[in-house]
Amino acid sequence: MQWGGRFAAGPSVVMQEINASIGFDRKMWRQDIRGSLAHAAMLAKLGIITAQDETGIRSGLEAIAAEIDAGRFPFEETLEDIHMNIEARLTERIGEAGKRLHTGRSRNDQVATDFRLWVRDAIDGLDAQIADVMRALADRAADHAADPMPGFTHLQTAQPVTFGHHLLAYVEMLARDRGRLADCRRRLNESPLGSAALAGTSFPLDRDMTARLMGFDRPTANSLDAVSDRDFALEFLAAAAISAMHLSRFAEEIVIWCSAPFRFIRLSDAFTTGSSIMPQKRNPDAAELVRAKTGRVNGALVALLTVMKGLPLAYAKDMQEDKEPVFDAADAWALSLAAIAGMVRDMTPDTARMREFAGSGFATATDLADWLVRVLRLPFRTAHHVTGRLVAKAEARGVDLAGLTLAEMQAEEPGITADIFGVLTVEASVASRTSYGGTAPANVAQQAARWQAALG
Amino acid sequence: MQWGGRFAAGPSVVMQEINASIGFDRKMWRQDIRGSLAHAAMLAKLGIITAQDETGIRSGLEAIAAEIDAGRFPFEETLEDIHMNIEARLTERIGEAGKRLHTGRSRNDQVATDFRLWVRDAIDGLDAQIADVMRALADRAADHAADPMPGFTHLQTAQPVTFGHHLLAYVEMLARDRGRLADCRRRLNESPLGSAALAGTSFPLDRDMTARLMGFDRPTANSLDAVSDRDFALEFLAAAAISAMHLSRFAEEIVIWCSAPFRFIRLSDAFTTGSSIMPQKRNPDAAELVRAKTGRVNGALVALLTVMKGLPLAYAKDMQEDKEPVFDAADAWALSLAAIAGMVRDMTPDTARMREFAGSGFATATDLADWLVRVLRLPFRTAHHVTGRLVAKAEARGVDLAGLTLAEMQAEEPGITADIFGVLTVEASVASRTSYGGTAPANVAQQAARWQAALG
Amino acid sequence: MQWGGRFAAGPSVVMQEINASIGFDRKMWRQDIRGSLAHAAMLAKLGIITAQDETGIRSGLEAIAAEIDAGRFPFEETLEDIHMNIEARLTERIGEAGKRLHTGRSRNDQVATDFRLWVRDAIDGLDAQIADVMRALADRAADHAADPMPGFTHLQTAQPVTFGHHLLAYVEMLARDRGRLADCRRRLNESPLGSAALAGTSFPLDRDMTARLMGFDRPTANSLDAVSDRDFALEFLAAAAISAMHLSRFAEEIVIWCSAPFRFIRLSDAFTTGSSIMPQKRNPDAAELVRAKTGRVNGALVALLTVMKGLPLAYAKDMQEDKEPVFDAADAWALSLAAIAGMVRDMTPDTARMREFAGSGFATATDLADWLVRVLRLPFRTAHHVTGRLVAKAEARGVDLAGLTLAEMQAEEPGITADIFGVLTVEASVASRTSYGGTAPANVAQQAARWQAALG
Amino acid sequence: MQWGGRFAAGPSVVMQEINASIGFDRKMWRQDIRGSLAHAAMLAKLGIITAQDETGIRSGLEAIAAEIDAGRFPFEETLEDIHMNIEARLTERIGEAGKRLHTGRSRNDQVATDFRLWVRDAIDGLDAQIADVMRALADRAADHAADPMPGFTHLQTAQPVTFGHHLLAYVEMLARDRGRLADCRRRLNESPLGSAALAGTSFPLDRDMTARLMGFDRPTANSLDAVSDRDFALEFLAAAAISAMHLSRFAEEIVIWCSAPFRFIRLSDAFTTGSSIMPQKRNPDAAELVRAKTGRVNGALVALLTVMKGLPLAYAKDMQEDKEPVFDAADAWALSLAAIAGMVRDMTPDTARMREFAGSGFATATDLADWLVRVLRLPFRTAHHVTGRLVAKAEARGVDLAGLTLAEMQAEEPGITADIFGVLTVEASVASRTSYGGTAPANVAQQAARWQAALG
Repeated sequence: MQWGGRFAAGPSVVMQEINASIGFDRKMWRQDIRGSLAHAAMLAKLGIITAQDETGIRSGLEAIAAEIDAGRFPFEETLEDIHMNIEARLTERIGEAGKRLHTGRSRNDQVATDFRLWVRDAIDGLDAQIADVMRALADRAADHAADPMPGFTHLQTAQPVTFGHHLLAYVEMLARDRGRLADCRRRLNESPLGSAALAGTSFPLDRDMTARLMGFDRPTANSLDAVSDRDFALEFLAAAAISAMHLSRFAEEIVIWCSAPFRFIRLSDAFTTGSSIMPQKRNPDAAELVRAKTGRVNGALVALLTVMKGLPLAYAKDMQEDKEPVFDAADAWALSLAAIAGMVRDMTPDTARMREFAGSGFATATDLADWLVRVLRLPFRTAHHVTGRLVAKAEARGVDLAGLTLAEMQAEEPGITADIFGVLTVEASVASRTSYGGTAPANVAQQAARWQAALG
Repeated sequence: MQWGGRFAAGPSVVMQEINASIGFDRKMWRQDIRGSLAHAAMLAKLGIITAQDETGIRSGLEAIAAEIDAGRFPFEETLEDIHMNIEARLTERIGEAGKRLHTGRSRNDQVATDFRLWVRDAIDGLDAQIADVMRALADRAADHAADPMPGFTHLQTAQPVTFGHHLLAYVEMLARDRGRLADCRRRLNESPLGSAALAGTSFPLDRDMTARLMGFDRPTANSLDAVSDRDFALEFLAAAAISAMHLSRFAEEIVIWCSAPFRFIRLSDAFTTGSSIMPQKRNPDAAELVRAKTGRVNGALVALLTVMKGLPLAYAKDMQEDKEPVFDAADAWALSLAAIAGMVRDMTPDTARMREFAGSGFATATDLADWLVRVLRLPFRTAHHVTGRLVAKAEARGVDLAGLTLAEMQAEEPGITADIFGVLTVEASVASRTSYGGTAPANVAQQAARWQAALG
Repeated sequence: MQWGGRFAAGPSVVMQEINASIGFDRKMWRQDIRGSLAHAAMLAKLGIITAQDETGIRSGLEAIAAEIDAGRFPFEETLEDIHMNIEARLTERIGEAGKRLHTGRSRNDQVATDFRLWVRDAIDGLDAQIADVMRALADRAADHAADPMPGFTHLQTAQPVTFGHHLLAYVEMLARDRGRLADCRRRLNESPLGSAALAGTSFPLDRDMTARLMGFDRPTANSLDAVSDRDFALEFLAAAAISAMHLSRFAEEIVIWCSAPFRFIRLSDAFTTGSSIMPQKRNPDAAELVRAKTGRVNGALVALLTVMKGLPLAYAKDMQEDKEPVFDAADAWALSLAAIAGMVRDMTPDTARMREFAGSGFATATDLADWLVRVLRLPFRTAHHVTGRLVAKAEARGVDLAGLTLAEMQAEEPGITADIFGVLTVEASVASRTSYGGTAPANVAQQAARWQAALG
Repeated sequence: MQWGGRFAAGPSVVMQEINASIGFDRKMWRQDIRGSLAHAAMLAKLGIITAQDETGIRSGLEAIAAEIDAGRFPFEETLEDIHMNIEARLTERIGEAGKRLHTGRSRNDQVATDFRLWVRDAIDGLDAQIADVMRALADRAADHAADPMPGFTHLQTAQPVTFGHHLLAYVEMLARDRGRLADCRRRLNESPLGSAALAGTSFPLDRDMTARLMGFDRPTANSLDAVSDRDFALEFLAAAAISAMHLSRFAEEIVIWCSAPFRFIRLSDAFTTGSSIMPQKRNPDAAELVRAKTGRVNGALVALLTVMKGLPLAYAKDMQEDKEPVFDAADAWALSLAAIAGMVRDMTPDTARMREFAGSGFATATDLADWLVRVLRLPFRTAHHVTGRLVAKAEARGVDLAGLTLAEMQAEEPGITADIFGVLTVEASVASRTSYGGTAPANVAQQAARWQAALG
């Protein structure tokens, strides 16, 4: 009944429900008004409408903006979308002049324009949010440039790194995310307005003027393409999916680091929740939700790629399904960034515990092997085998590498001297990684400072 | 500002926004109340709560149901989810007894129960809707069991089929969709209630009783699995994706059939829209939107598959991202089915035009080849080559196969007799396809009748 | 050059490369021969070909099977696909009779038949593999039915469970995977053979006979549907994706359990690898690869859903893209199952360490709360609050719950007696979870035994 | 047996099969050798290996390249991957020096380097291919700059456009595809070599030198990021998915245009195939396969996004699943581009038929409405309503708009003059669309020329 019921009223209900977009495209009201203002100004300049008409349109649209902002606008589902809602209201308010606004324009180029403007605004907002996360990470990295933690591969202790170095890895990822957003913005920043339904128009529009008024770099070059292109939305979603994946990795690390066996960090109550049945729990819900949001964003990308597959030119109604995935992904991304920024600032690392694990598990075996190459000039593969035997010996004796005696070491490789013990500490290990991009504290401090400066 | 702005208020706003699910999980209020009624009845029967407490709980929950139904329930975002909203309201209304309701239960098994119930209700509603579409198709198929249309492969005219036969192909697809829903329903129909947080409980619950009260076949067998399983949601989404794909195929055909060069069918205004700039247009918007919905459903499936990837047992907050894709896909599916049902009943086929195209493009070439095999006992491959040469000859002469003279035919294959002309008509062609499942009108009429009978 | 180069030779090279499927569909050679044998037997029985022809075809096909099996079959890319390769070879070997084999058949129903047979074989193989993993898990679960480990939610210690209980959760998941395979098999088990190109055929075929010979339950009911249906492949891929997700969860747990801070289990060298630079590493590569395979399977599902979107009936060449995702997903699934089965049998749990973590982190707080409800009849929510205060007190004092004195407890809730200490041990906690599906060792042993019996 | 059989031999077979990548990563042999040559040259320059060692390594690697190129290289599955295969062979050929090559390097940075080089090579090849398709389209567009065809929205005749204009819409899409590739290339063009396993190295490597030798712009800045970053692969796949979607749209149009009711274009035998049972068919298989390839590419993108979700830093074996989707998508993309380029050059448009459809269906209704606005100064919405009534009148009378008498028109709008007939022809319509980006033949010719010049 819940299901069949609502469609029993007949085709009109079904058609209304499947066709109307006002439920979601009202989100673009600012962009729609901005585009109409530019269009009207241009029509007036070219004498297609009168200056008086334009004044009427402008003040009418401004009044409508105020109405919407104040939550007093009478949205009508029967008017289908935000464009018709605003235009109908305009005509209601200012009369005939309102009917002239749509001259030389079609809903096809109008919606393409509005949506580009919306995505551009989203890009600008998200770019600022990403920069904020980077700043938070760089600040913490600067503080912990020299604090060792176990560097993992395969979640197995591999080599010591510093906590600051680890955090800066995410700064690099996020910097690429910003790069992708900037590229997407640059590519989308062309105005479809004036492409009309699909063929261009016979009105002598000044498309450069409307482009300029809306902050676009130039008008689009092909009207068929302009009304049927949703690349900018897909590119935005692809950038979102890659960034959400980055955030999911950090979120996974937070979840693992908060677990009892790790306890590398602690999150405050601000980003954890308790349990209805287990009062002792401090669940990293925010991190888990960030990790999960990557599903939603991947889904949005798949949704729009699927929608666009195999659509003949030019506009098809299928494209009305473009907005909700973009809105939803933008929200999820923004929320995830805010949560990650908050957790980066909130978390308390247990540096002593990290240090302890950094030194266990033969984490400096590579340092030993490198020493054999560097000092004894053993070929790398030979040094690797010698080290393997020493690890096996230490494991059998239940000690760490530094716990072997010099004699035990020399039994495997006579050239080893007592100098070897100098490379087997965690501190020596990280300090030695001075190659560009390496984890040596001086490197890390420098990189953190570079980012702090760049991010202002 | 629009972006940064709302998070400026600090962590609590971010956490609230990312954590709260009341915005969407309120959709499960009926299921939550149903589950609580069953749980309370069982607790009372076992003496874990008193009969008086149970009476209070029952009347409290019924009052709450009435409030929600009437739109008067005071939803609180700070109470996070539908479960806490209802429980808090219950305690507000009935006092201490409300605090006893959660005995032997956790939000983990509660949400798993509610969500299963919701998906089961959705399955039942969608199953009825699919049956309705099948009925509409079978009815039209019965009417058009003998009306020829071009059967396409590669969208090239291949062989004549009947319009009824074509429509029944979709009945078969939809029957499989119902089969998948039924299997999903059967597999999900186990009650997680009583699994508590993850380990089961020390209260001597009667899980069979609660299962029975909620219409489940039995309780789940492993508490860890019960609270961390979302297979039923994924299986539902997979069934939705396959069905949406079926509907997208039919929608594509409607769009193509409505195009000017085809004009195989006509949709009324009930399922088409005009254009803001091209008043002559009759756009098949509903069909295009159905075609597009497959994107949304695929996206929902990918979203949840991504969310569930690699989650350690048992419950993780990631799983809160399970509901929105399911709700959204269920809505899209229901709406698409309603639109397709409507269009099937609405469309007016131009049978004369279909008949005309059915007979063009050498569509009966296969009939000729089969005649050569059947009557002249040529090996199939040889008959195929002979037919190819005859088609080439007809094409060169600008006539159809029946336009060749007997002599022209015999020049390629001396055994051909005048009988050949009997198999070259569209009517003869379709009538001859009497193999089981073939397009012969008698077959089609029988299949249509079979479905009409089965669907009631 | 590497890129442009190979296409420089002109359209024929491009067309050959994009069109030919022999590179992958040769994998279906057994199925193609099986189908042809059934078809020939039926043609002979109906007198459409002679008994002598059928004998020739049969011995020819058997010889070809031997050739392929021995790697001596001369596959020709110019013959495009496995069907034409075999048919051409057959005619080469037995002459005219070979050209009669294709009577009343088309490549469209032939490929649909072969592919169904292949998927059915894959289902049978995978079903046996899943059963094997379940057996391995049930065996280990029986051994560890009473060994406590920390039960996690949010990867936070929640309540103690037993290791056997945890392993059995996966048995439940895998049982559902088998259920989905069985349903898919049942639904696909109809024979498309005899649907011909799309319309059925004028030859009086006995489709029941060919269906029976190939082990199908019945022939398909609509020829258009039969040649354009790929539901069985999609349903198989959906089942694969859900199962791969299950395996990814177990793989994630293996990776985490093997990490230094956890060390819950140890894998032998059989399923781990060393590092080229860090000789001490024992990387759980097999588990990581199983975790990753879920990507491949999700991708395959998305690929085919995308391919099928919006295809008009009946056959379109797009559908040739159906096989590679299915082959690839089946391989990935089989390999993942083999790896998981191996790791389940290989892993050595450190039960002492698991026991230790099971008792830390106030894991028995729920037991305390439940005691307050059960014994003191506190309302659940009240008991929850009392417990929360006791946990806070213990945390502040740096002790576990059992480390609080009775007086300290009574300060929060005067009704508490010394009995309380009886429920605060790990052993008491797991033993108390006797609700059906709960983690009580007796329950777990019984469930393990049930599965062992069911799996033989 | 086929299934269980191959794993019966035990864990070693399973591990070998799941772990080995040599089956696919051998595709990167050129890149692996290029990277090793750069590494050796740098080690020698810094004195970490001797000049003699470097000479030996160089000549050894060159000999190996020759071996692989000639198909004579003895690939060993037990050596797992291309890196170990080449290194082992090198040591076999040149002895001890070979063992020194891996100094200061790890498989983690080596594979990251090789894969980046491979993707960069793929980008360069694909970029050239896209340019070739654009050239083919621009050439055809120049020829057909003035030939009218029906411009569709919703596949309904909307307004006349020119065939050249339509083709140029794809040039715009492809230009954006190249832009995305260029951005991806720029972002990936940093050298991970020298990041070692994850922490950097204690050898004083000159990472700028190796970067320069391999054509990278600079070394990566964070070693943890460098070995765990696969953004470049994801960004490549996202660009591929968007481009494949573009190609699928063109492919869909080709399929529709080739269908009997449309017959807008004809493809030669070079890009079509016949049927095994319907000798008359000319199936646009290549176009259908291009349309389908978008599924494969979407699948590849989803696969890698899924793989990377939630991976803790730094390298995890999961990442070995990065290459096959990229290789497969690159192949599919290259093949699709080659097929589209071929079809663009091959197709014969039926311009007379396109012209005929361009003028039907009241396609110039918008021109009438615009005339009412431009000449009579009616408000747009009013003009739209008048036009709607005239269309309805023409439809009722069974004539086109130009078939109405002046009196009939004036009955709806008295201001209409005989001038109106000047805008109702197809030629007048397209000629009037002179707004920038519009379909006026002069515009189209200019845009085609611009692209021809730009593409050389």
